[in-house]
Amino acid sequence: MPLEPIFDVAHLGHVELLSDKPEASLHFFVNVLGLTESGREGDSVYLRAYDDYEFHTLKLTASNSTGMRHVGYRAASPQALERRVKAIERLGCGIGWSDGDLGHGPAYQFHDPDDHVFEIYYETRRYEAPEDQKPALKNQPQRFPARGVATRRLDHFNLLAVDVDAIRDFLPKALGSRVTEQIVLNDGSVGGCWFTVNNKSYDVAYTRDATGTRGRFHHITYAVDQREHILQAADIFLENGVHIETGPHKHAIQQTFFLYVYEPAGNRVEVANAGARLILAPDWQTVTWGEEERKKGQAWGLKTIESFHTHGTPPAKPG
Amino acid sequence: MPLEPIFDVAHLGHVELLSDKPEASLHFFVNVLGLTESGREGDSVYLRAYDDYEFHTLKLTASNSTGMRHVGYRAASPQALERRVKAIERLGCGIGWSDGDLGHGPAYQFHDPDDHVFEIYYETRRYEAPEDQKPALKNQPQRFPARGVATRRLDHFNLLAVDVDAIRDFLPKALGSRVTEQIVLNDGSVGGCWFTVNNKSYDVAYTRDATGTRGRFHHITYAVDQREHILQAADIFLENGVHIETGPHKHAIQQTFFLYVYEPAGNRVEVANAGARLILAPDWQTVTWGEEERKKGQAWGLKTIESFHTHGTPPAKPG
Amino acid sequence: MPLEPIFDVAHLGHVELLSDKPEASLHFFVNVLGLTESGREGDSVYLRAYDDYEFHTLKLTASNSTGMRHVGYRAASPQALERRVKAIERLGCGIGWSDGDLGHGPAYQFHDPDDHVFEIYYETRRYEAPEDQKPALKNQPQRFPARGVATRRLDHFNLLAVDVDAIRDFLPKALGSRVTEQIVLNDGSVGGCWFTVNNKSYDVAYTRDATGTRGRFHHITYAVDQREHILQAADIFLENGVHIETGPHKHAIQQTFFLYVYEPAGNRVEVANAGARLILAPDWQTVTWGEEERKKGQAWGLKTIESFHTHGTPPAKPG
Amino acid sequence: MPLEPIFDVAHLGHVELLSDKPEASLHFFVNVLGLTESGREGDSVYLRAYDDYEFHTLKLTASNSTGMRHVGYRAASPQALERRVKAIERLGCGIGWSDGDLGHGPAYQFHDPDDHVFEIYYETRRYEAPEDQKPALKNQPQRFPARGVATRRLDHFNLLAVDVDAIRDFLPKALGSRVTEQIVLNDGSVGGCWFTVNNKSYDVAYTRDATGTRGRFHHITYAVDQREHILQAADIFLENGVHIETGPHKHAIQQTFFLYVYEPAGNRVEVANAGARLILAPDWQTVTWGEEERKKGQAWGLKTIESFHTHGTPPAKPG
Repeated sequence: MPLEPIFDVAHLGHVELLSDKPEASLHFFVNVLGLTESGREGDSVYLRAYDDYEFHTLKLTASNSTGMRHVGYRAASPQALERRVKAIERLGCGIGWSDGDLGHGPAYQFHDPDDHVFEIYYETRRYEAPEDQKPALKNQPQRFPARGVATRRLDHFNLLAVDVDAIRDFLPKALGSRVTEQIVLNDGSVGGCWFTVNNKSYDVAYTRDATGTRGRFHHITYAVDQREHILQAADIFLENGVHIETGPHKHAIQQTFFLYVYEPAGNRVEVANAGARLILAPDWQTVTWGEEERKKGQAWGLKTIESFHTHGTPPAKPG
Repeated sequence: MPLEPIFDVAHLGHVELLSDKPEASLHFFVNVLGLTESGREGDSVYLRAYDDYEFHTLKLTASNSTGMRHVGYRAASPQALERRVKAIERLGCGIGWSDGDLGHGPAYQFHDPDDHVFEIYYETRRYEAPEDQKPALKNQPQRFPARGVATRRLDHFNLLAVDVDAIRDFLPKALGSRVTEQIVLNDGSVGGCWFTVNNKSYDVAYTRDATGTRGRFHHITYAVDQREHILQAADIFLENGVHIETGPHKHAIQQTFFLYVYEPAGNRVEVANAGARLILAPDWQTVTWGEEERKKGQAWGLKTIESFHTHGTPPAKPG
Repeated sequence: MPLEPIFDVAHLGHVELLSDKPEASLHFFVNVLGLTESGREGDSVYLRAYDDYEFHTLKLTASNSTGMRHVGYRAASPQALERRVKAIERLGCGIGWSDGDLGHGPAYQFHDPDDHVFEIYYETRRYEAPEDQKPALKNQPQRFPARGVATRRLDHFNLLAVDVDAIRDFLPKALGSRVTEQIVLNDGSVGGCWFTVNNKSYDVAYTRDATGTRGRFHHITYAVDQREHILQAADIFLENGVHIETGPHKHAIQQTFFLYVYEPAGNRVEVANAGARLILAPDWQTVTWGEEERKKGQAWGLKTIESFHTHGTPPAKPG
Repeated sequence: MPLEPIFDVAHLGHVELLSDKPEASLHFFVNVLGLTESGREGDSVYLRAYDDYEFHTLKLTASNSTGMRHVGYRAASPQALERRVKAIERLGCGIGWSDGDLGHGPAYQFHDPDDHVFEIYYETRRYEAPEDQKPALKNQPQRFPARGVATRRLDHFNLLAVDVDAIRDFLPKALGSRVTEQIVLNDGSVGGCWFTVNNKSYDVAYTRDATGTRGRFHHITYAVDQREHILQAADIFLENGVHIETGPHKHAIQQTFFLYVYEPAGNRVEVANAGARLILAPDWQTVTWGEEERKKGQAWGLKTIESFHTHGTPPAKPG
């Protein structure tokens, strides 16, 4: 009888991004992407999309660098959190407990094999809408802001890594993630890998860093309800002078409809829509794409842009 | 420390519908709704939407009646199936094991407090596309059929029940379902209840049967990728002489964009799109709507149509 | 040989609406509907959608009443304007020349048989975008405002009239309008009539005033690019406490996808999308709908709401 | 006083395309693009989109070549047709009268400066739907076919020409067309030019033929109602093995949302949606784009694909 799937981690919770142009980045996230500020502390502003149920999903921190400082996942229960901490300690990559943050309680921190910092927590702070943010429909935490792209919720994030094979081994053990799709290169190594802890087709993807730099960030993605909203987003980015890297188009992998831009500090941001696609099979069989298949480009033929393999944050240092 | 959430049941698997106009019903499901036939046996035709990963999600059975004969859920693992069987046996509503069907292996059957028949199974048959149904993208089980509404996947179903309070107690114990939203009437009784076993906002809803009849069926729902597809579906139903009951509009409860029609035998069918809305919180707090709130109608003001409370299949017998 | 079609009038230019709640109305048009202010004079604010090429398409005037003060059409040329003035003078309904307005040059004014005031002008003022409104694409007069519904352009307007038969005779003679669709009641009278001077399927519609009051206004309509934008608009209206009268749904007549709301002073406002439908035939044959056909409701079965026949501005006085 | 605009030509009527793979081309237009056959004669099949009011908009003719044999425009009246014939005769490019075709009456034929064959006619044959094509809504000539892309109506066509400057002088004189947008290269010559005879932003575009060949065809375009339908079309083309050349994306010029494919014989076909954009100004000022602006690519940054400048039908002969 096979091992049971692990359901200890409920979902991706938040990403902390660094910006060396914090005012411009904040303007982008609030007025162009349409997030809402829910708090400030120190050098950080806490941001959220209107249907995120937690206090924040993006912590934007002023820094002299860019990229991701840490990412947080929420456990399914206190018991599940304990199980994960033990598993991670066994993997030898634990950092230890933090007291938590404005938006959540105690968190256990660890690093992945490429030195990105993760944390898991259970106790969280639900968003309580102030009067002017109360929604008309009570099954939604915040009113719909008809401002900019007005994204609905945090969807996933993407990291660069030198050794994606190591990540593919690590995340299922650490978080109980399942590998839904992957790219296997002609030499047998993993070029890219998509993971999920729940029914979303992925909550994190890793892509090989062509520059050979460790610990870099590729992008964060907010979901919108409809593909048409991504077409509108393209016009909004255009009117606001935001650099559009590529899209809108449909990924062959995971079939997500996407659009990539750079926020002012250079961190890549995606808006995406997955349609009604979900991973419901508890024994989903990993879909593997080869190099030849990847050369066909995206679903409808758009070639993958070169910067997609090289641009990450912080910028790679010349070796 | 609270009890942990239960993840034993992975997802809704299939619904068996009865039709006393089987040829007309089959024409509707294949040519208007855009499902594909994957098999036949006895009086039944097995049908599927193009992104359903299992052999079938709808079993259409010729009968002298209408309504639902049974519904099947897939367990997350063999171990999880065993746990559910024990729990259901403790509830005293078990029927026993069946050998399974064209589309899946052994299934444990039981009835809900309103006498609808459920089953749980783990072993399943994945759909293997014949040559003319092979998709261009390998992460999709079947090619997109540009025929009729061309729905993507089974989404949920809805049953009528005389005592919805009993159902609200039962399903969490039997399947580990969570109650995501509910209607509580002024007398304190439950008028409607929405349940999920995974990240979808619901896989089954129960509504009080105003006629006081037990065991009736309200509707089955297939999901499409975009709200625009539901607007197109309305034109397709119109051109094909299909009775449109109400919609397209947006539900206040669950915020789903919907359209209801009757297939030729009278079973209600919905096409729906939930946008990017998911239930990610492992400790989601049930949203409760009162009678006054329900009187406001749907999200944008459409009044709930009277037949929504009375039309079910099979027709209620005059008492 | 039949008479040639008349192309003297190019398009609907602007509507002047009265509001007895001017601040609230202005907030609605700017922040909810997404229009932009282009000027002020006296009690009036001039407003425009982002793809309107003229200075304004809506003149909002503070008043102790509501409804429409006048509507303006732009002639195709100075010569065409002269021809229309002569034709209108022959009809005996001329009022005379005005000096024009902030947004256009001399205009010839007249009244329709129901005492609504029209004007025709040729000389116009093109919108010149200030620096912060310059668009990214130069074939668009103003940048896309990602604010509220962000409608694209003025589409049409609708008036109530006691005697729609008289209007049907009048407008083709006065403006060269063609009747594209109409409702003929069982007694042979015209219940509603849709007119166009160009390839749009209509720029004005008249509906019988069930209250028997003359000179009332039914609604003004701004167009959005996609039907999905109307679904988004419904949420925006909901969140802003705007009264949604009916919709979104698809009209059987003209097939327009629509949504009706009341702005704070009570004037009805529609947002609409016609898809790719145009009237290209120079000899288009009027489509006539009978009473029985109208009883079927809108395209997908929505019943026409009672207030649609009675609510106009200003309110009808009890007789 | 300026000359009056000319309204003698009502709209683009039909295009005759040649195919050296007539069976495969017919399959593409009927089953993939979703056109309907309305007649056959000799080597030609007559095809139409569901909202085209005339008998046909595409005449597909078996041949040993590819490209366009002729294009037809419908005049606004018999008198207007006479005026155009006189004007064309004065231009010295007349060919003479033909008796007409299955779909229309007598037509006056002429050639443009690049030797493409045009015709103008007034008498036409309206499409009369057979019983199984009768629409549910009587303001639509044919029922909506939920088959393939199911395009709504003919939109425009595009020709290649060696000397686009000559075309820009010619079409306004021959048809009364207006130049809505154009590309002027650094040497002052016209690289591309968009013309309209009505409120559509263009019914024909000419692009410089980089191969220096005369008389070639670039593409024919059918309109769909919504941008989402073009995204669906991309999937349908993908599943049917149709070569997608570029798109979906938004043109900077004219802002049309587009997708280009090759039908089996190599003729380029576009599906497009213009949103609510119309040319309403009778004195529209031509928008001129320079070489530097064109280098930015399409609206959201997609680079114009090289084959767009070279692929035409029939193939260019090596010089």
